[in-house]
Amino acid sequence: MTLLGLDIGGTEIKAGLVDSSGRILRSASVATPGDLDTLRGTLAGVVARLATGAALRAAGVAAKGIIDAATTRVEALPGTLSFLEGWLLADLMAPLLPGTPVAADNDARAALAGELRWGAAQGRRDAVLLTLGTGVGGAVVANGRLLRGVGGVAGHFGHLTLDPDGPPCICGNHGCLETFFSARAIEAEAFAVVHRGCDTRLAELVRNGKLTCAAVFETAAAGDAQAKRIVERAARVLAAGIASLIHAYDPEAVIVGGQIAQAGEPLFAILRTEAAWRTRRLLRREVPIVPARFTAEAGLLGAAALALEAAS
Amino acid sequence: MTLLGLDIGGTEIKAGLVDSSGRILRSASVATPGDLDTLRGTLAGVVARLATGAALRAAGVAAKGIIDAATTRVEALPGTLSFLEGWLLADLMAPLLPGTPVAADNDARAALAGELRWGAAQGRRDAVLLTLGTGVGGAVVANGRLLRGVGGVAGHFGHLTLDPDGPPCICGNHGCLETFFSARAIEAEAFAVVHRGCDTRLAELVRNGKLTCAAVFETAAAGDAQAKRIVERAARVLAAGIASLIHAYDPEAVIVGGQIAQAGEPLFAILRTEAAWRTRRLLRREVPIVPARFTAEAGLLGAAALALEAAS
Repeated sequence: MTLLGLDIGGTEIKAGLVDSSGRILRSASVATPGDLDTLRGTLAGVVARLATGAALRAAGVAAKGIIDAATTRVEALPGTLSFLEGWLLADLMAPLLPGTPVAADNDARAALAGELRWGAAQGRRDAVLLTLGTGVGGAVVANGRLLRGVGGVAGHFGHLTLDPDGPPCICGNHGCLETFFSARAIEAEAFAVVHRGCDTRLAELVRNGKLTCAAVFETAAAGDAQAKRIVERAARVLAAGIASLIHAYDPEAVIVGGQIAQAGEPLFAILRTEAAWRTRRLLRREVPIVPARFTAEAGLLGAAALALEAAS
Repeated sequence: MTLLGLDIGGTEIKAGLVDSSGRILRSASVATPGDLDTLRGTLAGVVARLATGAALRAAGVAAKGIIDAATTRVEALPGTLSFLEGWLLADLMAPLLPGTPVAADNDARAALAGELRWGAAQGRRDAVLLTLGTGVGGAVVANGRLLRGVGGVAGHFGHLTLDPDGPPCICGNHGCLETFFSARAIEAEAFAVVHRGCDTRLAELVRNGKLTCAAVFETAAAGDAQAKRIVERAARVLAAGIASLIHAYDPEAVIVGGQIAQAGEPLFAILRTEAAWRTRRLLRREVPIVPARFTAEAGLLGAAALALEAAS
């Protein structure tokens, strides 16, 4: 069975032909256009390039924001892709793939669908996924079903309140998890430390315009005290949020993916230690906190997994 | 159809015969015994009194702690009822009701089952329930099913982390919701205010040994500035926790029950205002925050609703 997976991101569209075992047969990526007409053309080009001659069974689309999976309607999609709001992703794809069923959902839920089918959540009926990137996304499977809530918002774990009087968040709330742990938050904290004149190798990164979240993690791993403090403090708050999720969902496992998860063991070690002492007494077990299997292809494979689900 | 509902609490056991429309036909309450043998005798007495001659279709048992609904095994039950840990509630009931199916779950999940069947959550497929008492309990229905998690712990919303460095909680975590909002937390805060010598009518309550959570709410309603500050601060943290739950579950409604919910509008007004500004942007709607229909009988009716579910 051949599936098409499409991951529509803010800067890049990734597409791939995927077989039912999760193998990517062919893939392509193109810059994300800034308006609907160009997007239609871009998608047509990508689909023609990948899918011509392939016996497609179904297609899946993953995108940021809030998507009603039942109708594939884009309910909210902030940023450069806001022109998609109100559109049905299935209608967008229909002229390119006549007669092919099209599934759609947000990227975090798609990523969990992919991990459930082929990755770190295989065989799980109750699992929580967090994606750590510019912000923090999330998804959950309970009783073997992905939870979507009534408006597709369920799983917005970046907006768990970790401090009712904390920093303002883009969502309007204060003290959301992603105001403490996210690429944006970690970079902002590093800028603040440098700006206050602290003695840290992060200063050089700022001077050279090379301050990224990944660079803060690297600087911490190299032993810089301020960078370590920033990473450890952010990771502790993330772990406190994971403790909330463990108490709320009682999952078999917590899967952690997204770009920042590439920091690997230094990050996971803090998450495991901190989440364990915060949840051990109620749970009477340690809930495994494991890296997602898929990284750059998480959205594409997740979209293909949604397609497979729709076709089954 | 006649059902038996049993609510085994730390100080009192409430039992009732309930019909399939949620009407309580007969009821009884007795003090909770301190050991298993006495409990067996007490339950036998209550069941004989209520159920003799009734054509019972099923029985339900609600209790605090963690209960595996699939087996009715009491996994954890702290406090005076800890002697029940490891027992199957169905085995306890079997000699008293031969051949009658017995369902069991924790009291918050039972309360939600009751509200779904006959109360404030009727017809809902996605709803969150909080019970505000000595601690804070919770339960959730998603896609029309009660969520239990892998070990029956799901819904422990009193243990959402609202401040990673906050006060230590009985569960081992720090800054749990119930360290800020619960009868225990509100009373402790009132004691602290009085002990620091602040000018407040709460001092008289402490002197007379009459400081209860309800009395703090009454003193606040009567205009005492310190009592108002305590109530408002606690309610704001609860609302921040409700915002997390709305972002996590995207429910149709949030149902709030338990003894402290009796404070009524002064409490609900804060919850609605605070939860609304914290969630409005992502949700693009206001999620109703409504009082539970059942109060003192929530456990008993909830247990009967579990029984009805098991019998259907």
